[in-house]
Amino acid sequence: MDKFIVIGERIHCISPAIRTAISERDPAPILKRAKEQIDAGATYLDVNIGPAEKDGVEVMQWAVQLIQSEFDNVPLALDTANKKAIEGGIKVYNRSKGKPIVNSADAGDRIDNINLAAANDAMSIALCAKEGIPRDNDERMMYCQEMIERAMDAGMEVEDLLFDPLFLVIKGMQEKQVELFEAIRMLSEMGLKTTGGLSNVSNGTPKELRPILDSYTVAMAMQCGLTSAIANPCDKRLMEAIKTCDMILGKTLYADSYLEL
Amino acid sequence: MDKFIVIGERIHCISPAIRTAISERDPAPILKRAKEQIDAGATYLDVNIGPAEKDGVEVMQWAVQLIQSEFDNVPLALDTANKKAIEGGIKVYNRSKGKPIVNSADAGDRIDNINLAAANDAMSIALCAKEGIPRDNDERMMYCQEMIERAMDAGMEVEDLLFDPLFLVIKGMQEKQVELFEAIRMLSEMGLKTTGGLSNVSNGTPKELRPILDSYTVAMAMQCGLTSAIANPCDKRLMEAIKTCDMILGKTLYADSYLEL
Repeated sequence: MDKFIVIGERIHCISPAIRTAISERDPAPILKRAKEQIDAGATYLDVNIGPAEKDGVEVMQWAVQLIQSEFDNVPLALDTANKKAIEGGIKVYNRSKGKPIVNSADAGDRIDNINLAAANDAMSIALCAKEGIPRDNDERMMYCQEMIERAMDAGMEVEDLLFDPLFLVIKGMQEKQVELFEAIRMLSEMGLKTTGGLSNVSNGTPKELRPILDSYTVAMAMQCGLTSAIANPCDKRLMEAIKTCDMILGKTLYADSYLEL
Repeated sequence: MDKFIVIGERIHCISPAIRTAISERDPAPILKRAKEQIDAGATYLDVNIGPAEKDGVEVMQWAVQLIQSEFDNVPLALDTANKKAIEGGIKVYNRSKGKPIVNSADAGDRIDNINLAAANDAMSIALCAKEGIPRDNDERMMYCQEMIERAMDAGMEVEDLLFDPLFLVIKGMQEKQVELFEAIRMLSEMGLKTTGGLSNVSNGTPKELRPILDSYTVAMAMQCGLTSAIANPCDKRLMEAIKTCDMILGKTLYADSYLEL
């Protein structure tokens, strides 16, 4: 069994510091966040450059080369609605530490991103959604099936898809959480890899609660078989949860110092 | 769905303060630990008076009346190898807040404790064990079945049994943990109530790790359906885990202040 994979979410153009750094091609803020996340235990880094309609290819290529050259070809998730920017990023991407991840495909308008991933020997996040939030797990599993079929038609290995059941905000959708764990268990029992935007769960809750909610959500999700998450590796409590659950589930060996390893 | 039940473990004759208090019939140390645990969120209190071969009946009756009269008939688990002491305790026990729990029966030498519970309209913890540690879940489920049959023969409702799959120490039995969660899930899917000595898991690990190990173990166990635990309610981190998982699983309603409720 493989260790849980954290895809660091902190290089994201929603952050003013990152947005400015991208528009001015200023490496420092991006490298700073890359280093913080790698030091904290991220395996992959997500690089979200926003819609990037104008200069997407150039921006993504700049960011990929900047981060990979500085950090030993750390593997990346290329995150933008601009398909050409993803393809451009993959062209300059060094895969010695892992395939690039396309972030993301779904079963609706974005299903072509599976073909994009297939054509470029990339992985892809596969949102179990079509229009808005899936109503229930029947919908989730139907969308999952549609994406598997698309991948198989395109000659892509199903293990290159990371299925995202769509974590939902607890404040307002509390009654949907149990079903979400069941979705993870179903995907997991099908032998599929899974991921998700974990911090969605605690969105809108008081700041001091967020690490608590995120850490027990990831623990319960890992019990159901979740194999990775798009998350903030600089949240120490969250990483403690992930290391502890990996160890309890036998994915890493126990040592008194396991939290420091 | 009912909230998770914590059976406070801190009135235990393994503690020198409690052992002395019992032998000297000194109420103060026992009432102190009872209050601490109730304030911290325990539903039941375990009262472990040890083997108590000599004056077991008198000690148990003294302890039961002492604690229940001071704390509004808080429900208790009567914990001793001395059957007469358990029966004596039940005789003076006030059940207005819940039936007494016999701690404990197993499928071996202690299976008669199920009859004792049945004869006294009590609940009983039912260890899924016969001699030593069960080898695997086939053994656990066989022992579970034997105890269910014994209960049914004695006219006891199965919901009055709390099945304990036997939590195992992670340091030395790390590879057994996944199977334990599966046991909880199987018991839970049979509609059975479950419990367990949670702190067994972290026994022998560094002191600062224990709340971390216990809290993620309980989170993953609750995801599998665990309904109660014999644990230390004064471990704030553990209670935070239990409250958070109860809320995520929809057993309590979300409020920004849910940790204080």
